[in-house]
Amino acid sequence: MKIVNERMEALGNVRSVIRDLFEYGLQRKKEVGAENVYDYSLGNPSVPAPACVDEAIEDLLQHTDSVQLHGYTSAQGAEDVRQAVAAYVNETFGAGVAAADLYMTCGAAASLTITLHALSTPGDECIAIAPFFPEYRVFAEGAGLKFRVVPADREAFQIDFASLEETVNAHTKALIVNSPNNPSGVVYTRKTLERLCTFLGEKELEYGHPIYLISDEPYRELVYDGQEVPYLPNLYDDTIVCYSFSKSLSLPGDRIGYILVSPKACEHRAVYAAVAGAGRSLGYVCAPAMMQRVIARCLGKTSDLNIYRENRDLLYNALTSYGYEAVYPDGAFYLFVKTPIDDAGAFAERAKAYDLLLVPSDSFGCGGYVRISYCVSTDMIRRSLPAFEKLISEYR
Amino acid sequence: MKIVNERMEALGNVRSVIRDLFEYGLQRKKEVGAENVYDYSLGNPSVPAPACVDEAIEDLLQHTDSVQLHGYTSAQGAEDVRQAVAAYVNETFGAGVAAADLYMTCGAAASLTITLHALSTPGDECIAIAPFFPEYRVFAEGAGLKFRVVPADREAFQIDFASLEETVNAHTKALIVNSPNNPSGVVYTRKTLERLCTFLGEKELEYGHPIYLISDEPYRELVYDGQEVPYLPNLYDDTIVCYSFSKSLSLPGDRIGYILVSPKACEHRAVYAAVAGAGRSLGYVCAPAMMQRVIARCLGKTSDLNIYRENRDLLYNALTSYGYEAVYPDGAFYLFVKTPIDDAGAFAERAKAYDLLLVPSDSFGCGGYVRISYCVSTDMIRRSLPAFEKLISEYR
Repeated sequence: MKIVNERMEALGNVRSVIRDLFEYGLQRKKEVGAENVYDYSLGNPSVPAPACVDEAIEDLLQHTDSVQLHGYTSAQGAEDVRQAVAAYVNETFGAGVAAADLYMTCGAAASLTITLHALSTPGDECIAIAPFFPEYRVFAEGAGLKFRVVPADREAFQIDFASLEETVNAHTKALIVNSPNNPSGVVYTRKTLERLCTFLGEKELEYGHPIYLISDEPYRELVYDGQEVPYLPNLYDDTIVCYSFSKSLSLPGDRIGYILVSPKACEHRAVYAAVAGAGRSLGYVCAPAMMQRVIARCLGKTSDLNIYRENRDLLYNALTSYGYEAVYPDGAFYLFVKTPIDDAGAFAERAKAYDLLLVPSDSFGCGGYVRISYCVSTDMIRRSLPAFEKLISEYR
Repeated sequence: MKIVNERMEALGNVRSVIRDLFEYGLQRKKEVGAENVYDYSLGNPSVPAPACVDEAIEDLLQHTDSVQLHGYTSAQGAEDVRQAVAAYVNETFGAGVAAADLYMTCGAAASLTITLHALSTPGDECIAIAPFFPEYRVFAEGAGLKFRVVPADREAFQIDFASLEETVNAHTKALIVNSPNNPSGVVYTRKTLERLCTFLGEKELEYGHPIYLISDEPYRELVYDGQEVPYLPNLYDDTIVCYSFSKSLSLPGDRIGYILVSPKACEHRAVYAAVAGAGRSLGYVCAPAMMQRVIARCLGKTSDLNIYRENRDLLYNALTSYGYEAVYPDGAFYLFVKTPIDDAGAFAERAKAYDLLLVPSDSFGCGGYVRISYCVSTDMIRRSLPAFEKLISEYR
């Protein structure tokens, strides 16, 4: 008998590259001073939550009975909260959803794990499009799905449809899309998404079963030039939206999000029931109750996105002027920069000599780039620019 | 290809008996008035959270930087929070634990599912002692463990060691104990626990591998006559404590608890790593960050237990005076009453005629009883007594 589950032990022992870099940064800051380390590793919102968040908490504390405020909600979330979210989604996107289509969760990771466990049956496969958030693999494999990757479109970081065509097969149960994208910062265009949805629809007909499109959209509101982020339930019936308020409201620690099973999805009541069952089986009793009520009062609000926009412009303009090549990011708070050598890991290692902490792109399923999280102080970006300039000059 | 995972769909569609009864109560209250329905179905704390909870939230809102307050903590929980919990556990129980042995979770269900996934390897079995919380079966089977039940000791509701001896085998990886117990309200005595630990120690030697004792203790502080609740890590090395603040601080909706892997446990760093890996795989990014800081400030505090004690005394004394037989409950907020007929379901159904909502005991792995959750208003208990008296008189 093995003492512990070896997959779990390995997952616990092997920190992600991002976490490792972050921990290195903490150590390095102790050695040379926090102001001399330019930590671009984590996607942790740097802009305070909008005032409505703390105001909602204060108001709830003062005007809600304690037993009610701190008590369980039903497993799928408080009815009034789900009604408020449904109303907001319908007003904003005209999606025609009901409270009964929504399941409140402990954030994006919970939304994804619950959805993947709900859909997974033996032999099923799940596809992600590179570059992608590395935990997708952990979540999909944990749910018993075979994880397949569509290589990146290295020109525009949209979708490489030739590769997608080769990856989809009769076992494909789900495909995860993430736009605005972590790590590229790119927003999939309406044209890309329409082509994707047409393609998937054809494949559903060919294979005779649904292929669910899982739209992981924690960055939906983080776009900077009025760029459209098309709402997938309006383009494709078999869509499941995995949403989180972590980034839009700057409250990642409070763990609050939702799953929306489109009412037009194939067998949508069965999918919803399986979502509820997966939540139960994984130990999610209900999403944090007070935070459910907080987000219901903050729908449509965001933290101050101007700061991220300013950071993006400053960083993108400076880096490209130094000779870096970068994908122009319309959203999220990531800049994806081509490394002047093929080995992104070696480049990121060299960057450490300048105390620039950049995440090599290999764990995102796409070599030859570094991810720069610009959810940091604008001042830190300014101070880091000479280091970026020196770094690239080494490769001229 | 199946559209969804059938186990998850079934779990989502089949509500627990308790939930069903609660929903029936909501409907019935609409028909006959809330004051005429005596709903004893749910184990939802009825006593407000102690003042320290809301005070801590207020203080954190006012004196903590927003990005810090609402930001991620490390996956295992904030270092200072884990240090505070370790210090409290050491002061209270002399357990010699460190912050590094603690993993903060989204409450008891998360503690259990994460622990079971961490330990589960193919062929392993997990044992629960009847009567037990029905979700243990869901959590254990969800983690791939075979679930085995030790029938109840129907005299004292301690442990039937003859049955335990028959149930433990070479595949036993873990045994869950829950004291104070849901649904019996019984506290296992030191004598019971010492016998259990000696027995498990012998079995570990016999089989040559650890058998982990999972102590599910959300009701630890809910004891009413100074009854001792022995601390299992002090009695048995291979102990993993699954704790929740839901009941002691009356904040079940806020989802906060922890896992403690005893530093004396076999391969305890591997177990801890597997716990961290399972948390990651199941989508628990970190326990709710603000609530981590709240409980760190409320350690050792509880909501007003006098109310539960008063409820227990009132209910136990009245029901036994009417001729009911009940296990005397030293803890939790449940009274386990013997049904005058063998069929607990039929008795609970008959009780509905008096608008008494009592949970039949079959789903707890032990027929012939009903569970009465006395976490309700004392006034409701008083008003319900004539109904209890009439109900039993039918069976004389």
